[in-house]
Amino acid sequence: MTYGEERIYKKVEVIGISPESIEDAIARAVKKARQSLEGLSWFEVGDIRGHIGEDGRITEYQVVLKISFVVK
Amino acid sequence: MTYGEERIYKKVEVIGISPESIEDAIARAVKKARQSLEGLSWFEVGDIRGHIGEDGRITEYQVVLKISFVVK
Amino acid sequence: MTYGEERIYKKVEVIGISPESIEDAIARAVKKARQSLEGLSWFEVGDIRGHIGEDGRITEYQVVLKISFVVK
Amino acid sequence: MTYGEERIYKKVEVIGISPESIEDAIARAVKKARQSLEGLSWFEVGDIRGHIGEDGRITEYQVVLKISFVVK
Amino acid sequence: MTYGEERIYKKVEVIGISPESIEDAIARAVKKARQSLEGLSWFEVGDIRGHIGEDGRITEYQVVLKISFVVK
Amino acid sequence: MTYGEERIYKKVEVIGISPESIEDAIARAVKKARQSLEGLSWFEVGDIRGHIGEDGRITEYQVVLKISFVVK
Amino acid sequence: MTYGEERIYKKVEVIGISPESIEDAIARAVKKARQSLEGLSWFEVGDIRGHIGEDGRITEYQVVLKISFVVK
Amino acid sequence: MTYGEERIYKKVEVIGISPESIEDAIARAVKKARQSLEGLSWFEVGDIRGHIGEDGRITEYQVVLKISFVVK
Amino acid sequence: MTYGEERIYKKVEVIGISPESIEDAIARAVKKARQSLEGLSWFEVGDIRGHIGEDGRITEYQVVLKISFVVK
Amino acid sequence: MTYGEERIYKKVEVIGISPESIEDAIARAVKKARQSLEGLSWFEVGDIRGHIGEDGRITEYQVVLKISFVVK
Amino acid sequence: MTYGEERIYKKVEVIGISPESIEDAIARAVKKARQSLEGLSWFEVGDIRGHIGEDGRITEYQVVLKISFVVK
Amino acid sequence: MTYGEERIYKKVEVIGISPESIEDAIARAVKKARQSLEGLSWFEVGDIRGHIGEDGRITEYQVVLKISFVVK
Repeated sequence: MTYGEERIYKKVEVIGISPESIEDAIARAVKKARQSLEGLSWFEVGDIRGHIGEDGRITEYQVVLKISFVVK
Repeated sequence: MTYGEERIYKKVEVIGISPESIEDAIARAVKKARQSLEGLSWFEVGDIRGHIGEDGRITEYQVVLKISFVVK
Repeated sequence: MTYGEERIYKKVEVIGISPESIEDAIARAVKKARQSLEGLSWFEVGDIRGHIGEDGRITEYQVVLKISFVVK
Repeated sequence: MTYGEERIYKKVEVIGISPESIEDAIARAVKKARQSLEGLSWFEVGDIRGHIGEDGRITEYQVVLKISFVVK
Repeated sequence: MTYGEERIYKKVEVIGISPESIEDAIARAVKKARQSLEGLSWFEVGDIRGHIGEDGRITEYQVVLKISFVVK
Repeated sequence: MTYGEERIYKKVEVIGISPESIEDAIARAVKKARQSLEGLSWFEVGDIRGHIGEDGRITEYQVVLKISFVVK
Repeated sequence: MTYGEERIYKKVEVIGISPESIEDAIARAVKKARQSLEGLSWFEVGDIRGHIGEDGRITEYQVVLKISFVVK
Repeated sequence: MTYGEERIYKKVEVIGISPESIEDAIARAVKKARQSLEGLSWFEVGDIRGHIGEDGRITEYQVVLKISFVVK
Repeated sequence: MTYGEERIYKKVEVIGISPESIEDAIARAVKKARQSLEGLSWFEVGDIRGHIGEDGRITEYQVVLKISFVVK
Repeated sequence: MTYGEERIYKKVEVIGISPESIEDAIARAVKKARQSLEGLSWFEVGDIRGHIGEDGRITEYQVVLKISFVVK
Repeated sequence: MTYGEERIYKKVEVIGISPESIEDAIARAVKKARQSLEGLSWFEVGDIRGHIGEDGRITEYQVVLKISFVVK
Repeated sequence: MTYGEERIYKKVEVIGISPESIEDAIARAVKKARQSLEGLSWFEVGDIRGHIGEDGRITEYQVVLKISFVVK
C-alpha cells in the first residue's frame, strides 16, 4: 500500500475471547475475522471486560475491537 | 453457551423504529436482524431519537442499537 | 420514505480517503459503499485524520464515517 | 421539506417530566415546546433521571432532550 | 430537605433487570436498593442493554443506573 | 416545587467571566441570566477556561455553564 | 473587546445546511443566526452529517454548531 | 505507602455540598467519608453543579467526587 | 443463572495493582474483592495507569475496574 | 517505515488557523510544525472552531490537531 | 493579536498543584510554564484531583490543564 | 516526593510499539522518553491499537500513552 493511493477501508466490530490474556483475545478475534474477510489491516481496542467464575478466577477476557480492512 | 469456551461475537449497528415506544423500536430492530443473522445474543442501546409530526405528536421513536451475535 | 412507516436502518463504518479534501474523502467512501449496498440514506462523520508525506505535505485526508441505509 | 433545500435548524434543550414513563416525559416536553415554537422536527434524548419518593417509589421520570426546529 | 442545608449524598451503581420494560427494570433496582439503604433520593440511567433469547425475543432489559441517597 | 408535579425545564448555555475566581464567574453568569429569565433553578458547570495576560497573570476565568429554569 | 472586562456570552445550537461544503454550511448557519442575534463572536463545530440522494450523491452537508454571542 | 507494594484501592462516589465554594464542598465530602472509611488517599472531581435560590443567589455548590481509599 | 430470572447486580469500582502485568493487576483486584463480596460475576476495565520508578522501570500497573456481583 | 520495526512516535497538539478553509488551517499547522520537528507522520483533527467578525463573516477557521512524528 | 492574522498555537499539558485552592493551582502552573515558554495565551482545565492526608485533610489540589501559546 | 510540596508536572503523549505485548509497548515508550526527559513519574494508557500483517498475524501493538514528569 502507498499513501495517496485510492482505496477505502471498512471497519467491523468483534469481541475476541480468551482464557489466557488480553493479547490472546485480540489474536483470536483477528484470526476468526480473517476466515471471512481479506485485507485486514489494523485493529483498535474498545472495551476490555471479563467473566469471573464461581471460584473467583477469571474465566475469560472479552476484548471488543474494531478491525479495519481494505475494500477491493 | 459456557464461559471459557472458544467463541467470537460480532456486533452490528441498526436503528429500530416504532410509533409505539422505545421498547417496541428495540424489538422491531432485533426481529429484523434475526431474519439475516443467527445466534443473536444481546443488544446495547445507543442514541434515542424521534420524529415530531406537524401536529406536534411523536410520529416515531428511533433507537440506535448494537446487536451482538456469535460467529460460528 | 414517510415518517411513521415501518422500516429498519443499518449502519456501516467506513474510511474514505482523498488527496483533495474532507468532502471528497466523504464522497469517495459513499460512492464505494453504494457499489455493494442499496438504499444509502445519510452519513455521520467520526474521526478526521490524514497522512503527512516526507516533504511535509498532506498526502491524503482519511475520514471515518458511518453510513446508514434502509434494510429491505 | 426536501433535502438539498435551503433551511437552518435550531436546537433547544428541555427537560420533560412525567410520573408515568420515559415516553410520556418526552411527549410532555415536546407538547410544551410547541406552545412557543413552530416547526418542531425531531428530538434527541440525553440524560434520563428520576426522583425517588420517601416510600421508595419512582415519583417522576426526568428526561433531558434536545428538540430541533426549522428557523424560518 | 431544604437547599443550603448541610448534607452529603452517596451514589451506588446497580443493574436492574426486567422482562417487561426499561421503566420496570429501574423500579426493580430501586426497590432492591431500598432494602439495604435509606434516604434514596434520585437515580440516573447509564447503559441500557438486554438479552435476546434463542427464539429472537427480548428475554430481559438490563438497565445500569446510579442511585443517590443521603448519608446521615 | 413538589416532585411529581407537572412542569418543564429549559436549559440555556452561558459563559460567565470573572477576574476573581471560578465561583465568581458562575455567580455573574447566573445574575445576568436572571435579568431576562425567571424561575432559575440550578446550574451545571461545563468547560473551565481562562485568559493569560502578557505579564503571565490570569486576567479572567471563563466558565461555561448550563442554567435550568422552569418554563411556565 | 478587552479581556478582563465584564461581559457574559450565550451559546445557541444550530444546524447549518449546504449542498456545497462543510464551510458553506457553517457560513449559512452563522448568516442566519445573525438575522436575530447581535454580537456573534465565535462558533464551535459539533456533529458533521449529510444526506445521500437516491443516485448516491451527497445532497447536503448538515453541520451542528454552537454559536456564542455577547449578552448586552 | 511504597509503590510496587501489594495493595488494592476502592473508589466511592459522593456528592459534597457547600454554600461557600467548590473547595469547601470537596472538603465536606471528604470529612464525611472519613467517618466511615479509613485510608482515604485521593479524590477526583466529576460534575460541578449548584442550586439557585428564588432571589437568584447561589444557595449551594454540589460537587460530585470519587474518593479512593486503601482496602486493608 | 438463567436470563429472564429476577435478580439485581451491584457494581463496585476498585484499582488493582501489580508489578507484573495488566492481567495480574485485574486478577489481584478480583481476588481481593472476593474476600468481602459474594457472587462476583464480571469486570470491566476503566483506566490503565502505572508508576515509573527512578531508574525508569515500570514499578507497577494500576488498573481501574468495575466488578459486578449479584445482590441476594 | 516497516511495521514491526522498532520506533516510537510523539504527539504534539497545535491549532492551525486559516481565513480560507478547514483543510488550509490543517496545512498551515503542519507546515509550521515541520519547521521545528522532523519525521512528521500523520495528524488527527480535534475541535473545529472559528471566529466571526463584526460584519458576521467568518474571519478564520481554528482547527485543533494532534501531529505525530517519529522520535529518533 | 488580530483575528484573521497568520499565526499558530501550540498546547502543552501540565498539572498545577496547590495546598490552597483550584485557582491557585492553575496560577502556579501558568507561572511555571511561563519560565520556559513565551506568548502564553489561554488555559483549559481538564481533571481536578487532590490528595488526602492521613488526618483526612486535603493536602493539595492537582489541576490538569492545557496551556496554549503562540508559536513564533 | 512529599504531597503538599511545591512542584509542577508536565505530560507528553507518545506511542509505544512492540511486537510482543501491550506491556512491552508501554515499557519501550517509557524507556525512550527517559532518554530526553528526567523525573518521569507515571503513565496513563490511551488508545490501544495494532497492525495486522498479510498473513493475519499481529505484527505490532501500538499503545498511546501520556507520560507525566516533574518540571524542575
